[in-house]
Amino acid sequence: MSPNTPYLELREDIATANASRMLATAAGLKVSLRPHVKTHKTVHGALIQTGGKKEGIIVSTLGEARFFAENGFDDIIYAVPVIENKIPTLLKVHASIKLFTVIVDCKQAAQVLFDAKDLPEDKPWNVQVMVDCGYGRDGVDPEAESTLDLVKALNDHKATRFMGIYTHAGHSYGAKDKCELIKIGEKERDTVVALASKIKTYLSVECGSVSVGSTPTCSVPVSNLEGVTEMHAGNYFSYDTMQMAVGSCAEADIATCVVTSVMSHNHASNFVLVDMGWTAYSLQGVQFPDLFGRILGHPELRVTKCKQECGLVSRVDGKPIDFSKYPIGMQLRVLPYHACATAAMHRSMWIPSQQKKEPIASGLWE
Amino acid sequence: MSPNTPYLELREDIATANASRMLATAAGLKVSLRPHVKTHKTVHGALIQTGGKKEGIIVSTLGEARFFAENGFDDIIYAVPVIENKIPTLLKVHASIKLFTVIVDCKQAAQVLFDAKDLPEDKPWNVQVMVDCGYGRDGVDPEAESTLDLVKALNDHKATRFMGIYTHAGHSYGAKDKCELIKIGEKERDTVVALASKIKTYLSVECGSVSVGSTPTCSVPVSNLEGVTEMHAGNYFSYDTMQMAVGSCAEADIATCVVTSVMSHNHASNFVLVDMGWTAYSLQGVQFPDLFGRILGHPELRVTKCKQECGLVSRVDGKPIDFSKYPIGMQLRVLPYHACATAAMHRSMWIPSQQKKEPIASGLWE
Repeated sequence: MSPNTPYLELREDIATANASRMLATAAGLKVSLRPHVKTHKTVHGALIQTGGKKEGIIVSTLGEARFFAENGFDDIIYAVPVIENKIPTLLKVHASIKLFTVIVDCKQAAQVLFDAKDLPEDKPWNVQVMVDCGYGRDGVDPEAESTLDLVKALNDHKATRFMGIYTHAGHSYGAKDKCELIKIGEKERDTVVALASKIKTYLSVECGSVSVGSTPTCSVPVSNLEGVTEMHAGNYFSYDTMQMAVGSCAEADIATCVVTSVMSHNHASNFVLVDMGWTAYSLQGVQFPDLFGRILGHPELRVTKCKQECGLVSRVDGKPIDFSKYPIGMQLRVLPYHACATAAMHRSMWIPSQQKKEPIASGLWE
Repeated sequence: MSPNTPYLELREDIATANASRMLATAAGLKVSLRPHVKTHKTVHGALIQTGGKKEGIIVSTLGEARFFAENGFDDIIYAVPVIENKIPTLLKVHASIKLFTVIVDCKQAAQVLFDAKDLPEDKPWNVQVMVDCGYGRDGVDPEAESTLDLVKALNDHKATRFMGIYTHAGHSYGAKDKCELIKIGEKERDTVVALASKIKTYLSVECGSVSVGSTPTCSVPVSNLEGVTEMHAGNYFSYDTMQMAVGSCAEADIATCVVTSVMSHNHASNFVLVDMGWTAYSLQGVQFPDLFGRILGHPELRVTKCKQECGLVSRVDGKPIDFSKYPIGMQLRVLPYHACATAAMHRSMWIPSQQKKEPIASGLWE
């Protein structure tokens, strides 16, 4: 029996198709695919993304790192710059699996790793250097001399093993069209390939991993990734109407939704009240009325407002609603504007084929 | 030892002062106070609000209803219109405590209660009727004849016990000034007092409870609540910068914050990166740069953007940041724009005086 509404539902056939397509894209480009699991944060979803293997994933919180390690996953990258107060938890995860990789983007972060107490002598940190390819959020400047110094320090120090370089073209979300997406993807690739070559030339150090990716640049990929070893992305597992607007997917590719029930009819103000508020959907995207609150099979409707525990559904054309079409208790399936944000509001995802709730590692940071 | 950042922290002395002030306001107006616990969803917070009693609260999800019932609370109102698929869980909570009250706002919802199977013969549903006092979201029209019909049906049917009427001036959040707040509070009061009188006159039925409230109208209260028995509010426990803008509180009254650490310095783009993204803060209010991301003790700074797991902190005046003042690892305390939304992103709240994490009933709907 399905859960009480509102609940997050996985449309498994779609997620599996999205995952297969991305695995095929990576294979075609002769790189491995390392899925980011931050969109769904579930074991079931991660296995769909990897094609059934419990290895080779990226997480964005220590809570996720622990969750996946405890569930038997190995070869995990924690793709957020390291700081000192996270060392005790990082050490626990590092000790619990074979290959746990952390990311640094400055010498202070490297120093935190060098100085960590209780690091096993025979198990140095595995470290990648985060590189900025134009996103401007985090990552080292690939042109700066200090970047080579950082790589050298990581390579030389006994507490760290330099594993390679990692970049994320987060600015691809702002691309105006596919042409711009391709250009961002090329810049992403060229940035790390050039840096890997520089590291080889000046330091005689190999980058074991040269990793690029974001859902938009992986969904509309460049024609070759020569010099790159791995691509990473996460949102493509579900996609959402934001990705649809960017050009990464079609509406039919969106693999998660919130199931909600009609609670009451407001004849005076011409809306249907449903039991999905921002606690179940998030308010992200509410400023985009054509992308926020789209309802499967009901193009005539949109969720136009979300309160804490309820939402207002209106007709797109503003005409009077025929309330008899949407009786109280009727269930509607709402597509996410931002799948990561919607899933983050839930503690479990309903898997229809298994008739079970799959735990989500949301709201956990350690 | 405090948790890894980011985490939600309760500033207990402030919350206790907020709660005491609201209890005093209610006492002064000769009504009881029924706190809504949806802002924090914690046992600790609810006890602060009630002044130590495990009774007389309002919840907004069945998950919260179960959570508080299981933690020994009684006299709980579930203040969201009832629909059929929630009956099994409603029945469980109804059976588990002495006084559980549900809300209806139309005859279909009443019918669902009348038709419920497995209702104990000696324990009818306790029902209040939700009344619209101008918010326009849910609630019956107080002027409509059908409202009296609904009350009569609830009063007559053996499956239900009519407990009173309930309204919520949610539109008070949009008030321009305190004068408008007072007017909304007066309308809130007058609406239910007039309806209670009408119910008495036409049906000879007493409203045991006549309940009004919202944090803005309770924080800037009307001068008398004659005819009202109870006021309800929830957000005042914490307050936030949105309430500050409405005029409900001062910045010094805000009782929750997110503790975050500086992760890196971006000299090129002049921002400090912190480990608080929208998964720890929510994106609500990002369109109000003076209210979003205010940092305790650092009026010169704001969190200007939130990504999934990190945030960008900039100077308000746009001048170059003196990064030496905000070293990597430094902790900052960020005030919520919307306390309910920020708390909903967490599974626990850190209570400094007890050095413990208090569970939050977030992300639970059944």
